[in-house]
Amino acid sequence: MKLLLKIRYIGTDYCGYQVQPNAVSVQQRLNEAALSLFGYECDIVGCSRTDSGVHANMFCATVSRKGATSLETSVPCEKLPLALSAHLPWDISVYGAEWVSDDFHARYDVVEKEYVYRIWNSPSRNPFEENRSFHAPKRIDAEGLLQMQRAADYLVGTQDFSSYMAQGSSVASTVRTVKRVTVEQSGEVLTLRFCADGFLYNMVRILAGTLLDVGLGKKTPEDIPRITAARDRAMAGMTMPACGLYLDRVLYRDEDKKK
Amino acid sequence: MKLLLKIRYIGTDYCGYQVQPNAVSVQQRLNEAALSLFGYECDIVGCSRTDSGVHANMFCATVSRKGATSLETSVPCEKLPLALSAHLPWDISVYGAEWVSDDFHARYDVVEKEYVYRIWNSPSRNPFEENRSFHAPKRIDAEGLLQMQRAADYLVGTQDFSSYMAQGSSVASTVRTVKRVTVEQSGEVLTLRFCADGFLYNMVRILAGTLLDVGLGKKTPEDIPRITAARDRAMAGMTMPACGLYLDRVLYRDEDKKK
Repeated sequence: MKLLLKIRYIGTDYCGYQVQPNAVSVQQRLNEAALSLFGYECDIVGCSRTDSGVHANMFCATVSRKGATSLETSVPCEKLPLALSAHLPWDISVYGAEWVSDDFHARYDVVEKEYVYRIWNSPSRNPFEENRSFHAPKRIDAEGLLQMQRAADYLVGTQDFSSYMAQGSSVASTVRTVKRVTVEQSGEVLTLRFCADGFLYNMVRILAGTLLDVGLGKKTPEDIPRITAARDRAMAGMTMPACGLYLDRVLYRDEDKKK
Repeated sequence: MKLLLKIRYIGTDYCGYQVQPNAVSVQQRLNEAALSLFGYECDIVGCSRTDSGVHANMFCATVSRKGATSLETSVPCEKLPLALSAHLPWDISVYGAEWVSDDFHARYDVVEKEYVYRIWNSPSRNPFEENRSFHAPKRIDAEGLLQMQRAADYLVGTQDFSSYMAQGSSVASTVRTVKRVTVEQSGEVLTLRFCADGFLYNMVRILAGTLLDVGLGKKTPEDIPRITAARDRAMAGMTMPACGLYLDRVLYRDEDKKK
C-alpha cells in the first residue's frame, strides 16, 4: 500500500512543488520529512507540478518506499498527518492521510481539480494579503462583476484552450473540460474559482488575467468565445502572478484508490 | 486641523502600537513615515495601546505637527493613504485619511471598539493561519458553539469586568458596557467578536480564553455570571496569545471630529 497525503502549503518561499537543482521545493521538504519519520528514503509523487510561488489549500501526494512498492510504518494512519507535520517547516503541513493501492497514481488518477485565484481589489494595499493575493487597486463595481461572471460562463465546456496556454509546454492535447468558473466578492476580496478535469500550463493564471480585463472594462464577455476560437495566446489577458493562485481541491475516484 | 488615519497592520514583528525603548513599535514606523512625507516631526496619537503581537484591521491615529496644533501639507487628503503607505514597511498600511478638528482626541473620543479573536479549530496546523489565529486542535462541535454563544450572551451589559482584567493595570473604574459578543464558525475558523465602549487590560484575550473553556466543556454558560460576580481573575479562563487578536473597528461621533 501507498500513503496518500493531503497537504497545505504557502508557496512563496519555494521553487514550486517539484524537486529542482539549486532551489528548495515542497517535494524536497516532504522527502526529508518522510526520511526523518520512516527512517528510509521514499518516493513522493504529487498530483500536479505547481509553479514557484503558487499556494495549495489541498495538494495530494503519494508516499512509497524507494525501490519497493509498499510503505511500512508502525505509526497508525490517523496519527501520520501530525507526525509528518512535526518534521515539516511552518509553511507546509499535512492534514490528511489514507492508504491507497500500489497501482494508484497521484497525478494520472486525478478526475477533477479546482484552482482559486484571489484578488485584493482596493486602492490601498493590505498587509494580510501580502503574497496571498494579487493587488488590483482599481475597484470593480457590481456591473463589472456581472460581466466577469458572464465571461466566465463562456469558458465552461469541452474546448481547445490553447489561447490560454503559456509557451514552452508540450502536451498531447490542448482540449480540456472546464466544469465551473465562478466569480465571488467578499468585502474587498474577489475569488475566481476554476474547476476542470485538468489545466494547461499557466491556464488558470491567464484565464484570471482575461477575466480581470473584463471586470476592468478592457474586454467584453463576448470577446471570450472569440479569444478561445482564435487559438492565439496573444489575444488573451496577462499571466497573473503566482501569489494569488491556490490549488484548492483535488478529486479522485474511490475505485481508483482501491484498484 | 489634524489628520485622522485608518491603519491596518500585522502585529507579529512589533512590540505593540506604542513607542518603547529598545523595541520597534507601529507608532515609531508611523512617525518615520510622517517625517519622510511631510518633512517635519509629527505627534501621532493612537486610539489604543495594542499589545505586542496584536493585529489591527482598523487602527485609528491622529497626526499633527510637533509643537504646533495643526498639520500643513500640499498632498490632497485622498492621496495621503497611498503617500504614507509608500513610506511604511510591508506589514503596515494606511487606507483612510480625513481632516478632524484640533480638539479631537484619537483615544478619549472613541465611543465604541470592536475586537475579533480568531481560532483555527482543527487537529492539523494551517500554514496560512500561522501568527494569524490561535490553534485549538480539539474540534468544537455544534453543541459546543451553541454553549459558547449562550455564555457570550451573559457578558453583554454594563458590568464590573475585573474578573477578566490582567494584573498590573491601574484604571479608575473596572465597569464597562459590552454591547455584543458573537461566536461565528466558517469552515475551521472560529471568530469571536467583542463590541464595547472600552476594554480593560487583556480583557478580550481573557474573555476569549473563558469562552473557549465553555466550547471545550471545561466551563458551562452558567459559570459566566458567577465568574463575573466574583471579581476574581483566577476564576476566568487563560489569557489567550496575542496572535489571534485583531482590533477590528473603532467608532467616533461625527460631532467630535468637528468640535
